[in-house]
Amino acid sequence: MVKVAIFGASGYVAGELIRLLLQHSSVELALIASESHKGKFLHQLHPNLRKIFNYRLEGYDLEKASKCDIAFVSSSYNSSLRLVPALLKRGLKVIDLTPMFRLKDPADYIRYYGFSHPHPDILKKAVYGLPELNRSEIKDAELVSCPGCIATSSILALYPLVKEGIVDSTVIIDSKMGSSGSGSKNSFSSIHSQRANSIRAYKPINHRHTPEIEQELARIKKTKIALSAHAVDIVRGLLATLHCFIEKEVEIKDLWRIYRTYYVNEKFIRIVREERGIYRYPDPKNLIGSNFCDIGFEIDESNRRLVLISALDNLVKGAAGNAVQCMNIMFGFDEAEGLYSSSPFPI
Amino acid sequence: MVKVAIFGASGYVAGELIRLLLQHSSVELALIASESHKGKFLHQLHPNLRKIFNYRLEGYDLEKASKCDIAFVSSSYNSSLRLVPALLKRGLKVIDLTPMFRLKDPADYIRYYGFSHPHPDILKKAVYGLPELNRSEIKDAELVSCPGCIATSSILALYPLVKEGIVDSTVIIDSKMGSSGSGSKNSFSSIHSQRANSIRAYKPINHRHTPEIEQELARIKKTKIALSAHAVDIVRGLLATLHCFIEKEVEIKDLWRIYRTYYVNEKFIRIVREERGIYRYPDPKNLIGSNFCDIGFEIDESNRRLVLISALDNLVKGAAGNAVQCMNIMFGFDEAEGLYSSSPFPI
Amino acid sequence: MVKVAIFGASGYVAGELIRLLLQHSSVELALIASESHKGKFLHQLHPNLRKIFNYRLEGYDLEKASKCDIAFVSSSYNSSLRLVPALLKRGLKVIDLTPMFRLKDPADYIRYYGFSHPHPDILKKAVYGLPELNRSEIKDAELVSCPGCIATSSILALYPLVKEGIVDSTVIIDSKMGSSGSGSKNSFSSIHSQRANSIRAYKPINHRHTPEIEQELARIKKTKIALSAHAVDIVRGLLATLHCFIEKEVEIKDLWRIYRTYYVNEKFIRIVREERGIYRYPDPKNLIGSNFCDIGFEIDESNRRLVLISALDNLVKGAAGNAVQCMNIMFGFDEAEGLYSSSPFPI
Amino acid sequence: MVKVAIFGASGYVAGELIRLLLQHSSVELALIASESHKGKFLHQLHPNLRKIFNYRLEGYDLEKASKCDIAFVSSSYNSSLRLVPALLKRGLKVIDLTPMFRLKDPADYIRYYGFSHPHPDILKKAVYGLPELNRSEIKDAELVSCPGCIATSSILALYPLVKEGIVDSTVIIDSKMGSSGSGSKNSFSSIHSQRANSIRAYKPINHRHTPEIEQELARIKKTKIALSAHAVDIVRGLLATLHCFIEKEVEIKDLWRIYRTYYVNEKFIRIVREERGIYRYPDPKNLIGSNFCDIGFEIDESNRRLVLISALDNLVKGAAGNAVQCMNIMFGFDEAEGLYSSSPFPI
Repeated sequence: MVKVAIFGASGYVAGELIRLLLQHSSVELALIASESHKGKFLHQLHPNLRKIFNYRLEGYDLEKASKCDIAFVSSSYNSSLRLVPALLKRGLKVIDLTPMFRLKDPADYIRYYGFSHPHPDILKKAVYGLPELNRSEIKDAELVSCPGCIATSSILALYPLVKEGIVDSTVIIDSKMGSSGSGSKNSFSSIHSQRANSIRAYKPINHRHTPEIEQELARIKKTKIALSAHAVDIVRGLLATLHCFIEKEVEIKDLWRIYRTYYVNEKFIRIVREERGIYRYPDPKNLIGSNFCDIGFEIDESNRRLVLISALDNLVKGAAGNAVQCMNIMFGFDEAEGLYSSSPFPI
Repeated sequence: MVKVAIFGASGYVAGELIRLLLQHSSVELALIASESHKGKFLHQLHPNLRKIFNYRLEGYDLEKASKCDIAFVSSSYNSSLRLVPALLKRGLKVIDLTPMFRLKDPADYIRYYGFSHPHPDILKKAVYGLPELNRSEIKDAELVSCPGCIATSSILALYPLVKEGIVDSTVIIDSKMGSSGSGSKNSFSSIHSQRANSIRAYKPINHRHTPEIEQELARIKKTKIALSAHAVDIVRGLLATLHCFIEKEVEIKDLWRIYRTYYVNEKFIRIVREERGIYRYPDPKNLIGSNFCDIGFEIDESNRRLVLISALDNLVKGAAGNAVQCMNIMFGFDEAEGLYSSSPFPI
Repeated sequence: MVKVAIFGASGYVAGELIRLLLQHSSVELALIASESHKGKFLHQLHPNLRKIFNYRLEGYDLEKASKCDIAFVSSSYNSSLRLVPALLKRGLKVIDLTPMFRLKDPADYIRYYGFSHPHPDILKKAVYGLPELNRSEIKDAELVSCPGCIATSSILALYPLVKEGIVDSTVIIDSKMGSSGSGSKNSFSSIHSQRANSIRAYKPINHRHTPEIEQELARIKKTKIALSAHAVDIVRGLLATLHCFIEKEVEIKDLWRIYRTYYVNEKFIRIVREERGIYRYPDPKNLIGSNFCDIGFEIDESNRRLVLISALDNLVKGAAGNAVQCMNIMFGFDEAEGLYSSSPFPI
Repeated sequence: MVKVAIFGASGYVAGELIRLLLQHSSVELALIASESHKGKFLHQLHPNLRKIFNYRLEGYDLEKASKCDIAFVSSSYNSSLRLVPALLKRGLKVIDLTPMFRLKDPADYIRYYGFSHPHPDILKKAVYGLPELNRSEIKDAELVSCPGCIATSSILALYPLVKEGIVDSTVIIDSKMGSSGSGSKNSFSSIHSQRANSIRAYKPINHRHTPEIEQELARIKKTKIALSAHAVDIVRGLLATLHCFIEKEVEIKDLWRIYRTYYVNEKFIRIVREERGIYRYPDPKNLIGSNFCDIGFEIDESNRRLVLISALDNLVKGAAGNAVQCMNIMFGFDEAEGLYSSSPFPI
């Protein structure tokens, strides 16, 4: 049994992480730690886990963690910057779910996060935890840094088309996100009476997921990303609509062929494009709770525009599920272990 | 492996049934049948199952069914009346998820459903499929008829208190239900623009679940039920608030003791009552997708009133999950087999 | 023109008050005051008012207020306790929208609000601002204290039946409320990801609106109230379902007659009971933004139970609209002035 | 008093039209006609209008209509094609709210609507009813054809920038629409359990509003439109995000200047762009029930991309309110008559 520690247990990502790891056949949840909620029962923070896992939260105990094989860090940004190096030093493998180790170029932290990164050396060795692209690096990584959810949905939709040279100019990403994406912190902007019945363009430019999408695609081919992020009145799920003007003549059957070629063996990618019915394109509603990323596409011939539609659950494939998938790779488990559960429908 | 047939595969209950049975270690989905959607792929009706189970729906093939061990019937009412006897005759065990075999007294079908029941003999031998009350009868049943969701939530909250003589007068049940409770049929009343932002008292009196609640409680003690049903703007979940005026002096600790005594070994009942926080009482949000029924309580001393609060997922413990639990009992499996998956949170 | 001051301008009630008063033909908004948001533009707090009323918020300026004819107080509880006496002393008529002057018996403040009321003398002369019951007292009042929204919906449904002796035992009120009912303060319990898809029994017993309902009905006949309050996933609106066991034989046509007799001349009460269709009973969806209280009813003959269904917009007839109606009475205006606007539909 | 007839009274647009016209000081609702609901009371279809307007629906009575000054047509497409010529022949001014007379080029009806238009001559003289662009033509029009809601929001955002030569290449429009946009017809795709918690890309290419946007902008400068339409989980409101790559160097202050110049006198356009807070950009939540179109903007310097954000209420500025505004122009009324009412907030 792999011994797992989780740091930052009170947030939504941690809740989902625990839910998934409890379904995992080869994992022992050895330490679940929260600084602010130490001593509380898990189910007081994650009411879904009542009677499923009876556990009293511990503090950030590095000593105890040092007996674990791997740590997931889903804490505050500041804690991550402190915990990750400390855990690595103690010999643990680490999967960080904050953005603190995603970007290779320290300058991006200054520009997008407003601080000078204290561990540029660790940035270098962190592996960007997107299994569909970086599986072999993840396998041998000490530190995996999990992507942001908009990044995951966008990169997975774009990667085969960038690789094949179909997409080669600036890509517009128009994302629509549920409220769980802003976490469990309370603020006036997140209260129900403000957020329900709303469509809020919360970040029409300069979104922080931009540099990581560009960074990962640049490993294939430099691609400019123009991202605008919206919040919509759902709790869970993300839909990214990608608009790309293309030079090459391309047909629907070419896109089918390319996506199938790249993703035929991927367990968590579904190509969704039907001629009729109401499930013609990806919709987060159809995958809540599961680790799928659904990808669809359409060609707008009058504008030589490609429309890619990518949906995922921001807390699963967009965070906790993807992290478990990375862990499975790192320890040689079946990549889908713990991630089999399908989505209840309709939600 | 138990060979399972499902009749009426297009509805929401069937979708959830398939999702759960796919997680079951000892079951083979041998026949999934739909009259109206024969030939379609399962994922065209249940988009969550795409890439999880590749299956082409068959018609209502009794021949094929006869090779199965058990059939779940979640079809139209008329089809159930026709299928259940036919399946029983062919020697299958049957779990019916329609209300067509729930009531013992044929007169109730005239009063509440407006027709004269064609099979009063079968009514007699049908077992009301609520494991927490009727476990031993379910074990030996040929035909199990699963409760309505309001009935399940109400009976589970009331049963220990009726048994203990705490509750002995008319009980008011005020239920609040999500839209999946009205199934996947389309009608003007069910469209989003009519149903969203609404609180609709769709059945303030004469609700069809009334006689089954009274029938099951009467096996302990005759209890009158006064049920008013409301639809609220969620898809999934049911909250029943039960108001009972009580004669006996009773304290919170007595209620704790009673519920614990009765339900300590029940895997799918959680007693939820906290002094503080936002998860003090049951809320369907905390159990969507899972087979739990959460029960809470409060005493209104100024009115000698007991307030019971009962929450469940109308499609799981209120339908498909409860049916799987019955099947597990009928075949001697662990009662929780296939039902381990916990609820994603928050949804 | 009547000169109006508003204290506590940042909350939802104040926002609606301003919206309605801007439609009023005989009112001048002379002072709109907020302690915490002084200096901000009105539309920064109430984005719906952008380009409709260009106003920079002032502080709590009693000097300036003294030139006004009437003040609406929708501030914090503490500020109300301080402002109301000060405004009365300066000769203004006052309409208070907090609960601070609703209850006649100071002991109720200790029991329900946890403090000893500093102005028991003012409690005595405050008029409970429910026009349909207390019109003539409101006309001559110096201080009107507006009811809580659950109280308004419940009293209006009960009053004719209590008066006629139909309802004479404990009444169970099961209320379902939108999130705007908890105001614009942010807390963990109010964030969208916690509150959406939820049905929360936030106050199953001991709700603070209980004593005011009992107080007002007691003026006709002592009536016990057993209230359980729920929050549902809508922003705006309230539905109260009232369950009453009755002794007297009563028929639907009697109820029609009674309600018509009492409310035939009431501009803001609609009796809603249809034989068919989806608008058979009151639903807050059908009156959002308007000052209506819709009342419906049903008789559960098997239980000698009366079910009353009462809907209103918690911020309009449940607060700001009702307050404007009171002001109209106090100044001899048409009672509906400023309140003509009907509800957009569907919302 | 202008005598008004409405054809097609059962739909949502007609409901809002009636609500607004009832607030109009110079209008008499002389005929409200519905073929399918003849004889019903208005409030049975539009429950918000109960006690506000007591009216029994009539059939499509052209004789009666001929005594009116103006007819609004919000019927089915087929009825519009029949009614509009008939009404014009009887000398009425007509405002059509269907798309049947919006497009000048009959070929567009073949391409986008799949039929050969029977009245190409009438298409020629129909005026596209967007007051902010075509005020003087509307003034003298016999037939005004009101824009689609996505078209209104998009054209109003683009027009000043196209005119000033800022936007001169293909514009990507990514729209997010509430469920009232698909009308009151019921279908499986529109039921609450399918539509709630969903983000559905219902028309990623070839949306029917494309040709009307291109048509109207072409009067200034030929502009290509690449539109992708999404449905989100709200009832009311539309947000369009427009992405434009620009050649010219442009700054935020230039955009402010241009929008102010063009729209300073427009009563129903608000420029929304704040540095902080949660109301920084347009959001349909802030204008539901009102006739505003809110426009915001941002410059993505890294991509020479302009992001325009445009919000309106699809049933008001996107349909009924805009039609009333047109009528006001046609009859020389104050353009805002009947349209003063502001939006309740929060909804």
